[in-house]
Amino acid sequence: MNYSIIIYILGWIMNVEAVCMLVPGITALIYREKSGIAFLITILACLAIGVPLVSRKPSKKAFYAREGLVTTALSWIVLSIVGAVPFVLSGAIPDPIDAFFEIVSGFTTTGSSILSDPTQMPYCINIWRCFSHWIGGMGVLVFILTLLPLAGGYHMNLMKAESPGPSVGKLLPKVQSTAKILYKIYIALTVALIILLVLGGMPLYDSLCAAFGTAGTGGFGIKPDSMGSYSLYIQIVITIFMILFGVNFNVYFLLLTRKFSQALKSEEVRCYFFVIIASALMITFNVRHLFDNVWEALQQAFFQVGSIITTTGYATTDFNQWPAVSRTILVLLTFCGACAGSTGGGIKISRLLLLAKSVRKELHLYLHPNAVKKIKMDGKAVSHEVMRATNIYMIVYLMIMAASIFIISFDEFDLVTNFTAVVTTLNNVGPGLSLIGPTGNFGIFSPLSKLVLSFDMLAGRLELFPILILFLRETWKKF
Amino acid sequence: MNYSIIIYILGWIMNVEAVCMLVPGITALIYREKSGIAFLITILACLAIGVPLVSRKPSKKAFYAREGLVTTALSWIVLSIVGAVPFVLSGAIPDPIDAFFEIVSGFTTTGSSILSDPTQMPYCINIWRCFSHWIGGMGVLVFILTLLPLAGGYHMNLMKAESPGPSVGKLLPKVQSTAKILYKIYIALTVALIILLVLGGMPLYDSLCAAFGTAGTGGFGIKPDSMGSYSLYIQIVITIFMILFGVNFNVYFLLLTRKFSQALKSEEVRCYFFVIIASALMITFNVRHLFDNVWEALQQAFFQVGSIITTTGYATTDFNQWPAVSRTILVLLTFCGACAGSTGGGIKISRLLLLAKSVRKELHLYLHPNAVKKIKMDGKAVSHEVMRATNIYMIVYLMIMAASIFIISFDEFDLVTNFTAVVTTLNNVGPGLSLIGPTGNFGIFSPLSKLVLSFDMLAGRLELFPILILFLRETWKKF
Ligand SMILES: [K+]
Ligand SMILES: [K+]
Repeated sequence: MNYSIIIYILGWIMNVEAVCMLVPGITALIYREKSGIAFLITILACLAIGVPLVSRKPSKKAFYAREGLVTTALSWIVLSIVGAVPFVLSGAIPDPIDAFFEIVSGFTTTGSSILSDPTQMPYCINIWRCFSHWIGGMGVLVFILTLLPLAGGYHMNLMKAESPGPSVGKLLPKVQSTAKILYKIYIALTVALIILLVLGGMPLYDSLCAAFGTAGTGGFGIKPDSMGSYSLYIQIVITIFMILFGVNFNVYFLLLTRKFSQALKSEEVRCYFFVIIASALMITFNVRHLFDNVWEALQQAFFQVGSIITTTGYATTDFNQWPAVSRTILVLLTFCGACAGSTGGGIKISRLLLLAKSVRKELHLYLHPNAVKKIKMDGKAVSHEVMRATNIYMIVYLMIMAASIFIISFDEFDLVTNFTAVVTTLNNVGPGLSLIGPTGNFGIFSPLSKLVLSFDMLAGRLELFPILILFLRETWKKF
Repeated sequence: MNYSIIIYILGWIMNVEAVCMLVPGITALIYREKSGIAFLITILACLAIGVPLVSRKPSKKAFYAREGLVTTALSWIVLSIVGAVPFVLSGAIPDPIDAFFEIVSGFTTTGSSILSDPTQMPYCINIWRCFSHWIGGMGVLVFILTLLPLAGGYHMNLMKAESPGPSVGKLLPKVQSTAKILYKIYIALTVALIILLVLGGMPLYDSLCAAFGTAGTGGFGIKPDSMGSYSLYIQIVITIFMILFGVNFNVYFLLLTRKFSQALKSEEVRCYFFVIIASALMITFNVRHLFDNVWEALQQAFFQVGSIITTTGYATTDFNQWPAVSRTILVLLTFCGACAGSTGGGIKISRLLLLAKSVRKELHLYLHPNAVKKIKMDGKAVSHEVMRATNIYMIVYLMIMAASIFIISFDEFDLVTNFTAVVTTLNNVGPGLSLIGPTGNFGIFSPLSKLVLSFDMLAGRLELFPILILFLRETWKKF
């Protein structure tokens, strides 16, 4: 194991996080909140540890997939531990495990909260919660790597581990420049959203929080009714941007470089929009009697569908009151998730497409045992390795789900609470049903369960393997 | 498509079913029940259609995998339609869809019932319900093929489609003689169980019903409290035999032929017993305060674990009152299922073992990208085809589950009812939770939902593909 480079990168994580904490720090200054001191102390402590760690370049250059996975997992854990410190120091969330859960939920863009009433929190604490979505959404590790002057082929190893979906399209030969363009798109979309929200009369502070939560598909609420009390205009803007942030960012890249036909050909994105429109129309038809007119039903249906399929988790209405068909559609969309290469969680459309295609191929093989048929995606044959990785993903996904449900059942809550708690965290969605529904929160769980659910959030965000591999004894063996 | 052979086999299905209906017919004679006339009419109608159909041998000999799958699926559907007729004719279950659901539940050894009170049924009706478990458990099609004087290599194609689990071990070169030995074991175990139950003071009629339900891992109750009112001795005998019928029958064959070491080496069976013992001990510890002493808790835990893991579905206590940990273990065991090559349903231990091994291999590959590692089972390398089939099975399983939950959600029941209804039918378990729990029944569902759940029961019993392929247009095309 190449510890020197791991420690070097972890040092950078601390430095970058210190810079990120300027956002809540400045917020505290503006609102003259005492909690700002907690951020100041954390920033100084981070720099005191981080700066010496990055002062000299790592000696050993060899860096394999194993190191890539371990570094990714450790980066997110360090990021979370450091990010939880201001919660504890300021007394906003005094319990360290609660604070850890809350910030893991932030960075993994899950949005499940242990807070019973987030409106009671200081401004600087709430903007840190929301800003953590934005940081987590862009993948902090890849961000650091685009800035680091490290040469060699190992960037790809890290990026593969952190980025969502079955495959990272190589947009440009150089990973660093690819990543830089993706970040520019991410930042541009976020700024556009902030401007549109402010123009719609949303206070700047609210606009920032909502934009960070939307861009990262996070969904932490700063109001008791999530997005329910905002104007129709703002709800529609949020709907559109949630759906936009669920699109594979490679498509934006293709659009930017005027490769329109290639962008339009993306099977995943076409399927994504088809699922959104079909689901929203079915729900509209199903709930039309609950609203004054069909347009209101349509708008509410699109908001909820966009929020759930992108795993954002905002709500404008209590959809637990909706008929079973609509609720079932929303529950199924929870598993579905958005496109690979977006900030959303879940299983991802491209994975589901690959799985559906492999089933079709298998049924075809049953009928024509000697036929030769390749699975294709966007016109290109899918390699055996990608198919195997997709299958293994599904199996590991189910295993983590079963094991997590079993462990948290020791808290003796009902099965719906346990099941939806695991599903919502593993898919990085946020809200659950029963005791963790709109009126409840995750504070009810025992410390052990909170750690298990934190594990699930990290596993979900990092595509299962990096965080799983951390717990294998074999990983830490010399070879 | 070789229709001549398909029709020939369907003719045999009708004839064999006519013979099987002698059991309820004779029961009706003994108890002097008028419902017996319904069985008499059905028997005569069956023979009137079946005998001409089998009177001449099929002309075309070619018989491929496609025909094998279609024949298997159609056989079970014909079997069920014919089996439902006496329910309707006798007026015991006047609605044809209800009657179809009930008998599909019987033949697929599921045991979910639309009856609110089975104790109100005539003796002949109840013994037909239970006897259908026994017929379904042994796989009626394979049974017919062991008797038919058809030459050629196509027996295996059919048997593969009907028999549970990822692979049928070829015990002997000739499939017919293999099957004959398996049936002898099945019958011998059933007879032994009947004798032990009668010796324990259970009435002969009850013993027959209980033995048929246990052997087929079916679980239809003829008492309102399932097995709760029988003596401790009877409960223990049922526990042992449920677990025995969940063992891969190949192991009994090996034991019969004195290949003890090979029998003991079976990873699946060892894992099966390990899961049973571990689950029962955990539950005992978890529920010990609910019982007078730890032995009673142990006995109850073993009964429930044996009933659920073998997907029998009998109960001796209302385990909905048990703590969440115990309930969670039982729910997870529902998915687990018994061994391949047994009469039980569910995903099967061997499949889960294969999946766990493939995950271990994949994690190993992450750490040692150049390592070459084969997945082994019982010391033998598992072929790529078996692994792929196992993966595809899991994906199709999840897809059928999602689609079924969506369709039955139109009945507007709660999510727990819908989810457990699909899970319990797809895994051939029987009881569900909420509205279809111990005090409810499946009569609440709409006709469409009953057909969907019947589809799920058949799909679960026939390992998904035969019944799925029936709905593909491609299957019915000429080529
Ligand atoms: K979320
Ligand atoms: K059953």
